[in-house]
Amino acid sequence: MSLDTVLVKIDGEIDLALDRLIALLKIPSISTDPAYKDECRNAAEFLVNDLKSIGFDAGLRDTPGHPMVVAHGGPDAVEGVPHLLFYGHYDVQPVDPLELWDSPPFEPAIEDTDKGKVIRGRGASDDKGQLMTFIEAMRAWEAVNGALPCRITIFLEGEEESGSPSLVPFLQDNAEELKADIAMICDTGMFDGRVPAIVTQLRGLLAEEITLKAATRDLHSGFYGGLAQNPIHLLTKIVADLRDDEGHVTLPGFYDDVPELSDELRAQWDGLGFDADRMLEDVGLSVPAGEQDRTALEKVWSRPTCEVNGIWGGYTGDGFKTVLPAEAHAKISFRLVGQQDPEKIHAAFVDFVNARLPEDVSCIFSNGHGAPASVMSTEDPAFEVARGALSDEWAVEAAFVGAGGSIPVAGHFKEILGMDAMLIGFAKEDDAIHSPNEKYDVQSFHKGIRSWARILSALSEAA
Amino acid sequence: MSLDTVLVKIDGEIDLALDRLIALLKIPSISTDPAYKDECRNAAEFLVNDLKSIGFDAGLRDTPGHPMVVAHGGPDAVEGVPHLLFYGHYDVQPVDPLELWDSPPFEPAIEDTDKGKVIRGRGASDDKGQLMTFIEAMRAWEAVNGALPCRITIFLEGEEESGSPSLVPFLQDNAEELKADIAMICDTGMFDGRVPAIVTQLRGLLAEEITLKAATRDLHSGFYGGLAQNPIHLLTKIVADLRDDEGHVTLPGFYDDVPELSDELRAQWDGLGFDADRMLEDVGLSVPAGEQDRTALEKVWSRPTCEVNGIWGGYTGDGFKTVLPAEAHAKISFRLVGQQDPEKIHAAFVDFVNARLPEDVSCIFSNGHGAPASVMSTEDPAFEVARGALSDEWAVEAAFVGAGGSIPVAGHFKEILGMDAMLIGFAKEDDAIHSPNEKYDVQSFHKGIRSWARILSALSEAA
Repeated sequence: MSLDTVLVKIDGEIDLALDRLIALLKIPSISTDPAYKDECRNAAEFLVNDLKSIGFDAGLRDTPGHPMVVAHGGPDAVEGVPHLLFYGHYDVQPVDPLELWDSPPFEPAIEDTDKGKVIRGRGASDDKGQLMTFIEAMRAWEAVNGALPCRITIFLEGEEESGSPSLVPFLQDNAEELKADIAMICDTGMFDGRVPAIVTQLRGLLAEEITLKAATRDLHSGFYGGLAQNPIHLLTKIVADLRDDEGHVTLPGFYDDVPELSDELRAQWDGLGFDADRMLEDVGLSVPAGEQDRTALEKVWSRPTCEVNGIWGGYTGDGFKTVLPAEAHAKISFRLVGQQDPEKIHAAFVDFVNARLPEDVSCIFSNGHGAPASVMSTEDPAFEVARGALSDEWAVEAAFVGAGGSIPVAGHFKEILGMDAMLIGFAKEDDAIHSPNEKYDVQSFHKGIRSWARILSALSEAA
Repeated sequence: MSLDTVLVKIDGEIDLALDRLIALLKIPSISTDPAYKDECRNAAEFLVNDLKSIGFDAGLRDTPGHPMVVAHGGPDAVEGVPHLLFYGHYDVQPVDPLELWDSPPFEPAIEDTDKGKVIRGRGASDDKGQLMTFIEAMRAWEAVNGALPCRITIFLEGEEESGSPSLVPFLQDNAEELKADIAMICDTGMFDGRVPAIVTQLRGLLAEEITLKAATRDLHSGFYGGLAQNPIHLLTKIVADLRDDEGHVTLPGFYDDVPELSDELRAQWDGLGFDADRMLEDVGLSVPAGEQDRTALEKVWSRPTCEVNGIWGGYTGDGFKTVLPAEAHAKISFRLVGQQDPEKIHAAFVDFVNARLPEDVSCIFSNGHGAPASVMSTEDPAFEVARGALSDEWAVEAAFVGAGGSIPVAGHFKEILGMDAMLIGFAKEDDAIHSPNEKYDVQSFHKGIRSWARILSALSEAA
């Protein structure tokens, strides 16, 4: 096995790898919108065919939602060399507001920018570009060496952006097939856009959609204004009440299961020199929001939050309509940490909302889903081996960090498959994931592929 | 002149009158939505042609927005017989949410209901059905008598549901042509669905649209949640803060120019036996909202309000998107009374909003428009003459009442044309104006036509 030859192969064929990524990005696999169901399947089939082309025994597995991709490759497991389970997701976020995109989201292209070349398009960073980094690493490894260095299972889902409804049942039904020694999850980023990172703690998520129902029909505010309940007013009161003036969440019991940061981790994070001002400045902001008594890294990595992600009600078209609407809606999410229990927080939220409604207004709770936070064990020596490989590729000491986003699959792998997970990815804060004009740096893609080749090499040599 | 013969003619040809109304209702003249510009013109042309067919010198007058209809008819003005200016509007409200309509809004039909026959369709009550009551009365009068009983000018606008941007300039530019002795405005309702009423005081309106702008793009709540400003949260706080727990509006100075009700008017209103419980029950509500220290009639007729008529921001589609949006929007309206000055309230609102924004969030104020409240003088004997005619038709004592809705044209007629206005209409609370399934009772239409014939007769005989 020659790592250097593999790295040369990767460098020589980077344009072909970009072409393959662009072909995958052209498939609008928006999982949350039923209109794109067939496109999700197309993306899954694309990946099955690609994995077959590099020797994997790959197949598409139907679920009640979008299909899973499962592939097996490499030699039989050998004592001392870990059997790896790679995870990524082929589905993407919706693209609205479409008018804010400078180019069509599903017509990806390589662009020159003042920060270097980027791949522009929905899913470029989250997560198609990232998942292709390890597929490309394996392609190069197999081409150079004629075989993979260790037993590898690949598991790709298509519902990550819509709450992963099929994930837990699928893991339960296929636990024996999917079990490996350690999971590698490629859906995270570089620290501060420059330091390669392995995420060791992730926030959980509780998502809630509420619909307040007042009058049986929309009312004219001239006739009824000042007398009848306006559900938008009630909704704004509920949402506003969810946070106090210092940015704390006011749900009773919300902070009961939130641990304080250990002194060691606090010291390590303080040492990262995180530049919160720059992070805000990059998106046109200057005033840190949220809990006023917490550092920026605590806020985004280890503190729970409450955010309203969408709100709508009444007349929202051009001009004016002086209506008291019959209904008002909001989508609200809580980022969870430590031992916060999504079911307990959900119950507290239901009580909180209902306590603020007059008896003639009702609330429907729908589309709720949740996952607890997860904290990875870093005692497995593979963590330090992988950290060393990342440091070699990027010529800077790689870090163990936290992540503000939820990647519930890490928790599910632990619970259902009994495996730890290493979360390694090459996204940057300015990738605009979930936003218009999403991109992935060509450098992230190229050095990401090289990083995985180094990790594969180091983990199989470590035996 | 024979009133009885005119009434017999109206009764005998009511089906033809309904056919004409249905033809007008089929034209989707939604003034607030630019997509319906041509349809607004079609409605205006329909009315010009109809007025010409009954002998009026009628024409369509272009404006920067939708056209006005102006028509002149009847004998030259005679001493002691008032020259009347009739006003109505041919534009209608938008129809969303369309899925809540039981039949298409612009395919009007006569329906049997357990409360009697109704004309169902957008604009049936507001205001096409109402404006046709006086056109039909004049058609019958002219057919029976060969001439109208007095000098009559008809003035119909097409922007009432979108803030009437062309109205004031048009009145100013055509003041000499439009001046008459008294205006008759047909855009109000029966009291409690049973007592014919002349509205003598109307609330004004200040409409405000606000857009909060935070980050330069939508943000992922996993990366930025807890650190970056969420403009929806700021918006909900602003809207929630606009009213206190007792339903009072909290804008500084808001109540400065709000008069208390006179003892006489309070006594008269108390005598009307208004059943607020039933009004709420009709729309599925039971708990009076708004100012807890005011009676229901005060709330809707003589107290100012603040209502949010629309709110939107973030992800509002199917499923979930854990986004911190770049923008959040609301449409907010204030009903004004007494001497409240829309410009002064607007300035207080701007200050109120800006005081609640961190320095990296800005607010754009747009689409604002306002009109003060108006209180009509009832000393003109024509008010009592008309009240008598209404009492005769409906066999119940007609009332002088207030109205919660804004009909700014009454104020403009006073200011620009120097005329008092009588506001008489036959709408009912359950007409669902501005809502899905709008209707107008066939009884309102039929007896409304007869009412105008009686008023025309009484005003010309009074001379």
